Order: sequence, then structure tokens, then C-alpha cells
Amino acid sequence: MVKYPLEFSIGNRLERMRAMQISELRYHPEERVLVNGWVLHHRSSGKIDFLVLRDGSGEVQVVIREPDRSRLLVVLEQVQQEASVAIQGVVQQDPRSPGGLEIIADGIQLLGSSEEYPIGPKSHGVDFLMDHRHLWIRSPRQAAILRLRAAIVRRSRAFFDSHGFIAADPPIITPSFAEGSSTLFAIDYFGEPAYLSQSGQLYLEALAMALGKVYAFGPTFRAEKSKTRRHLSEFWMIEPEMAFCQFEANLRWQEQFIEAVVQGVLEECQAELALIGRDLTPLRRVLAPFPRITYGEALKILSDRGLGLHYGEDLGAPHETALAEAFDRPVFLTHFPASLKAFYMQPDPNDSTLALAADLLAPEGYGEIIGGSERIYDYELLRSRMARYGLDEKTYGWYLDLRRFGTVPHSGFGVGLERLLAWIAGVEHVRETGAFPRTLTRLWP
Amino acid sequence: MVKYPLEFSIGNRLERMRAMQISELRYHPEERVLVNGWVLHHRSSGKIDFLVLRDGSGEVQVVIREPDRSRLLVVLEQVQQEASVAIQGVVQQDPRSPGGLEIIADGIQLLGSSEEYPIGPKSHGVDFLMDHRHLWIRSPRQAAILRLRAAIVRRSRAFFDSHGFIAADPPIITPSFAEGSSTLFAIDYFGEPAYLSQSGQLYLEALAMALGKVYAFGPTFRAEKSKTRRHLSEFWMIEPEMAFCQFEANLRWQEQFIEAVVQGVLEECQAELALIGRDLTPLRRVLAPFPRITYGEALKILSDRGLGLHYGEDLGAPHETALAEAFDRPVFLTHFPASLKAFYMQPDPNDSTLALAADLLAPEGYGEIIGGSERIYDYELLRSRMARYGLDEKTYGWYLDLRRFGTVPHSGFGVGLERLLAWIAGVEHVRETGAFPRTLTRLWP
Repeated sequence: MVKYPLEFSIGNRLERMRAMQISELRYHPEERVLVNGWVLHHRSSGKIDFLVLRDGSGEVQVVIREPDRSRLLVVLEQVQQEASVAIQGVVQQDPRSPGGLEIIADGIQLLGSSEEYPIGPKSHGVDFLMDHRHLWIRSPRQAAILRLRAAIVRRSRAFFDSHGFIAADPPIITPSFAEGSSTLFAIDYFGEPAYLSQSGQLYLEALAMALGKVYAFGPTFRAEKSKTRRHLSEFWMIEPEMAFCQFEANLRWQEQFIEAVVQGVLEECQAELALIGRDLTPLRRVLAPFPRITYGEALKILSDRGLGLHYGEDLGAPHETALAEAFDRPVFLTHFPASLKAFYMQPDPNDSTLALAADLLAPEGYGEIIGGSERIYDYELLRSRMARYGLDEKTYGWYLDLRRFGTVPHSGFGVGLERLLAWIAGVEHVRETGAFPRTLTRLWP
Repeated sequence: MVKYPLEFSIGNRLERMRAMQISELRYHPEERVLVNGWVLHHRSSGKIDFLVLRDGSGEVQVVIREPDRSRLLVVLEQVQQEASVAIQGVVQQDPRSPGGLEIIADGIQLLGSSEEYPIGPKSHGVDFLMDHRHLWIRSPRQAAILRLRAAIVRRSRAFFDSHGFIAADPPIITPSFAEGSSTLFAIDYFGEPAYLSQSGQLYLEALAMALGKVYAFGPTFRAEKSKTRRHLSEFWMIEPEMAFCQFEANLRWQEQFIEAVVQGVLEECQAELALIGRDLTPLRRVLAPFPRITYGEALKILSDRGLGLHYGEDLGAPHETALAEAFDRPVFLTHFPASLKAFYMQPDPNDSTLALAADLLAPEGYGEIIGGSERIYDYELLRSRMARYGLDEKTYGWYLDLRRFGTVPHSGFGVGLERLLAWIAGVEHVRETGAFPRTLTRLWP
């Protein structure tokens, strides 16, 4: 077992140093440093060894020349891909190196070996990689996507926090359901039937009446038997809900939010986006306001493109892609037939067969990334809707109460984090957008 | 149904104004404003009416004098507690008013009535209040606790984000378990048995090997049949995990984190803490470093206080309270007998019967708020521990892989958000620390 913190003996000197992160090296040119990390690559010319080291904060090239190389050869021969090592040496500026720095090393210690690391430079099948997801996340591309995810989470929260929204956590274990009962995961709650939340919205409406503007950011669950590149059974949602907010203001919050996140990530995550190979041109165009088309107008556009739908039919992925192609930035699809949407959506005052609902479609075929609506605030209207949808007042009495006691116009929306990330990162399949994704066929690792 | 946005007719003028938030009023003294909100109190002297209005951003007193009062009497007579109203009037500076401002109103419109609002100024039983949690959260004390919760969430994330940690989301639906199988919520995952996560730790260890320093902040679940003031079956945890971090450095991260959050909240949330009536003196003392005592030393202190435990027995709530009373700030309890702790904890190099684990006990009887440890990084040691605990290699093979491929010393900890909030807010029972708490006997609303 390796002793840690490390003691290095170099010649007759015993040195003990604080380890430094790779991201700190640029503040220490020409200095002697100790760096811990994992080996991404190791190659040897026979006279000189090159390692690329990663530690989560960055990557750096390590160069070991003669005579140190010969002295360290016993260790160097064991240093394979993903071995963990401690390196001692001097930081040198070198414009040819990635990051402009390298370490000229005269000490290396093997912390943990890595024999027969399963993920090599050759290409592997998706099932193999997903079975090794606990290791696959170490690869530069997967790690970059996870860092992008963290940046989107941070930027999203910062947007709402800085605009007076209060973060709140609706319950995950619920007795009721918002989006339809066929896709619920059931659990036994001390003998009572319960379900994993598909959306915190109903609870967030109660919270908006208490706190004004609120948002949730947590996991939601859908037991959908869909095996597509857009579906996860566990995914995270950002769900803002605003009192005294109507349909048009709701759309403005959405487009401002998307603009802030996309432009913020473009500024902050250049290295990650470059590593993934994302084309930045379409992202730079994501500036509010976004175009708005009604469901009725959408049917016309689709018909012109040979994708006719009957009035009242819902759009599928090919329709969303075709519509998005008609615009240079995300597009709102509004005023759906009420029959396509949830019971709680406010009718259009000009045509009560339409719902004041909107989906935001991402460009480049990434489909719906936001769904939102104004909510019904009239007690009698909501009550009759609930009766028509077969929702009993015992379970939903508390939700009706929000319309009995100081009801106000209010609106909200839900953003799927993984779809938003898939689009921003430009990855084909949502399974790469989370650390350990859960799909119809995957519960492990 | 009320028309919205509102049109006010005052005399012969029809006015339509942008509504302003209460928090914005101080930038608009002597100006004419429109404010929407809910009525906290309404009293009338017969000649003058006083309303206190809340909108989530703040509270403001509204004064309606003659002759406006007589003109508006038909509306004013319907304005009960929690009615939603739109107020038009002029902002006046008044040092006697809370916030130093009031609105002299000449217009009021009832948006949503509130007849027989169930929560009055008289005291109610806990079950009644919890049955009306969707309304109870509107009360100033409950809303202040929820705002404190949001501030703690924001400060916690800011601490880790600004120290190079990457936010990551371990899965909620898991095939395996970290903390013992008797307290798991089971779910049917498309025909496979699965469980709700009790901790993301094992997955976070994999993520730390990919990203260096990571943290999760999400819901965790324990089907504990405990009905105490400290137990929820659904609660949120902050779980940092650091590669190249050992026991002592782990304690330093913990005390720096707690200091940053407590001092940050003290600075930012003075109004909320005052409203709740929190004694700030003990919070001001929460400065790192925190004292550390071993399990062995704790037994001596407890014995002196008449709370003797046999060596190897676990501490209960009374023991934690007694220990905390011996110190003026949070105290680390370290070096537990390994038999009391989880399989993955690194043994003390000086006494392998002890675990390099620590609990952080909050002052004032709030008990454990953090549990953490160094993790075993040696492959053979972890493998033999797993065998002894009956954990099969098929399920945990991926976790062992972390020790096969580039293992490194690493540590982490878990902070229970609701217990942290209960302590900082000084609330007696964790049921007040979340929007819709889930306990052994409560799944509704």
C-alpha cells in the first residue's frame, strides 16, 4: 500500500511538498512542484518519456529526459493508461504544449497501477462503454460533457437566483401525479401507494403563492417504455413558477433564460466545447427574442414540407425537427388544441379550445427543451376540468385551495436539463448527458 | 373572472400600469405605483384602513384614508386575510412603518377572494397545519424558513463551485445500496428490483476519479421507521468527494464549508433570522477550526456527565446533545470503532480497529449534521471488507474497479440539508425545514 502524503527521495534529499493542482501551475513558472494525477497517455522515444497527466482541474504534459529517465525506468515501465502517479519536477513554459506549460520531471511515484485498463484508444461498442460507465467518465470527452453539465446547472441557478426567484424543493415521493398515470414508477410508502414525481409543478404553484417567484431543480421520473435517443427514465428538471405572470411574460422569461445559459456557457466553457468539437455558430445565434408560431401555423409549415398532420394530432420528433429547421434559433410553438395538453392549462381568451401553452423547440433536431403554460386560476373552471379528467377532489383538494384563497394569474415552465445539455454540447444521445444514466434497459452500474 | 393585467378607473381616468414588486418600492419614493399581492392583515379604525400586503419579495403597509376609503368600501369589505389584491397609490417614506415605507392608496381591486381562510391568528395543532401545508407555507415564519433554505442551498453551492468542485448528479434509482438494506424504499424498475438512493457516495467516488473534486446536491431517501424530530424519509444531501484528500484535509473542508455557510447566512438573512427569533450569538461563534475529540475521549466526557456507554456502543441523540454542550461551536467526533461504521471506511494506520471517520455535531442539541470519512483505497483490503459484509462482487464490481485502475487516497462527507437548516434557523422539528416534508406518517399533501 502506498504511503501518502508522499515522501520523495531524490539523491540523498528527502522532500515533502504540498501537492499542487494542474490548474495552479500557470502561476508557478520555473518553480519546483509536486502534482498528483492519472496518466492519459504515456509514450517513450527510448531516450525521452512523455506523459499526459490529468487531475480533474486540467491536463499537463510531463517530460522525463536522461539521466532521470534511466534512474526512474523501473517505475516508468509500470506507468500505463489511467495509472495514478505523483510527479515532481519544474514547470517550464513551452508554447508547443497544450496549455503552454510542461513539467520537466525528475521524480515519479506510482500510487495505483492500472493493468489491463479496459477502455483503450480503439473504438468500443456502446453497451461495452455503458457497462464501464464508472471508468468511461474519465475519458476527456465524457468528462468535458459532465463539466458542461455542471456549468449549465450553475448558470441556470444563477439566472433565477439573480432575478428574485426562491429555490424550493417539491417532494419526490407523491400521492398524486401531474402528467398521466401510465408512466409512473410506483413505490410502497410504509404500506401506502405512492409514486415518484414526474414534475413538481402543482407543488410549485402552492410555493409561488407563498414566495412569489420560485424554481425547483431536481430529479423527475418517467417510466416511459420509449427507447429513443431523447428519453431517460430519470432526468433533472428546472421548473420556475411565477405568481402574477401571464402567457407572454412567461415566454419572455424562457427566452431570456435560454439566452443567458447558452451565451454564458459559450463564454465560460470554450475548452470543453472545443474538445467535444461543437460547432459554435448556431449557438452564437441563440439571442432573444425567439420566433413564435402557433400550432395552426406549424401545421401549414409541416404540410408544405410534406409532413402533414390532421388538426388535433400531436407532433412527433420528425415534425419538431422539420419546424426547427425553418428558423435560425429556438422557436416557440404556441396555442395548442387544449385536448393535447394538461388539465391545468389556461384557455386562450380568444378561443377556448386552445391552451395558453408553449413548447420551445431547439435547433438542429434536438426537439422540445421547454414546455410551459399559463395555469388556470379560476376555481370553477379548474374544478370542472378536474372532474372531466377524472381527478378526485380528495387527492387534489389542496390544489383547488390555491384558487379558493387569493387566486392570482400565474405561469411556469419546465426545462429538461439533459436535453438542454445534449443540444448545447451537440451530443447525439442523452445517455452521454448524465453520470450514470437510467434508461429502459439500463439500471447498472 | 378577474381581467388581468388590471385596468384601474380612478375618477374618469383609465390607467394601466406595470405592476411593481414590493422590494422595488424603496427606489420609487413619492411615486405612483401599482402593486399586486396577498393581504396578511386588514384592520379598520372606521375612518382609516390599514392593510399589510405581501408579494414574496417583501411586505408593505397600505393606508387608505377618507374620502378614498368610502369610495372603495364595497371592495374593502371583501378584503380578508390572504385575499389577492391590486393596490394603486403613492409611496411615502414613514419611519414608523416596517421597512420605512408605506403606500397611501386610492385604488384597490380584489383579484381573488379568501373566504374562511383556515389558518387564523389563533394557534392550531401540528396535524392541522401539516394538512394545510400548501397554505401554511404562506405564513411569515414558514416562508422565512423556506427563504433561509434557499440561501443555504445557494451559499453551499457557491462554496463548492468557487473551490474547484464540479457539481454532479449520481443516480437516484440504484440497484445497490450504501447504508444498509433495512431502510430502503423499493421500486419496480421495468421488472427489475431497484431502490431509491440513500447516498450518492459510491458513484461520487467514481466521479472524483474522473473530475478530481466533485459534489452532489440532491434528494436521498431512508425508509426509517423513526418518528423523531430529526428524521425525514426524504431529505436533501450535499455530498462532496475529493480525490487525493485524506482524513485531516477532509475535516478542514468540512469546517470551512460550515463556517462559510453560517457566516454567509448571518450576513444575508438578517430579516429572516429576526422574524424567526433566532438567537444569533451561538451562530456568530461558528468559526473554524472546530474542536476534535475521539470516540474514546467522548466516552469519558459522557461518563463524567452520567451518560456512560460501553466501548463499542453507538451514540444516541442524548449523547450527542451532551457532548455538544461541552463546546462553544460544532465539534468533530472522530476515530470510531470500525464496527460502528460502513464497510468502505479507511482504518486508522495506528489502530486498525478504528475507522478514519468523523461526525460533526451541531451545538444546541441539533445533533449530527455531517458524517464523513476517508475511503479505503487498497484493492485487497476493500475486497476482503466487502466479503465480510456480504456484498457480492457482481453488484459491486464496478466499485472495486476504482481500486484496480489508478486508485488514489480519497475522502468525502455528507451534509443533511434539513438538519443544517433546522440548526441555523433554530427550529425544533425538521418537518418545518422543507416545503412538503415526508415522514413515517405523512405523504400528503
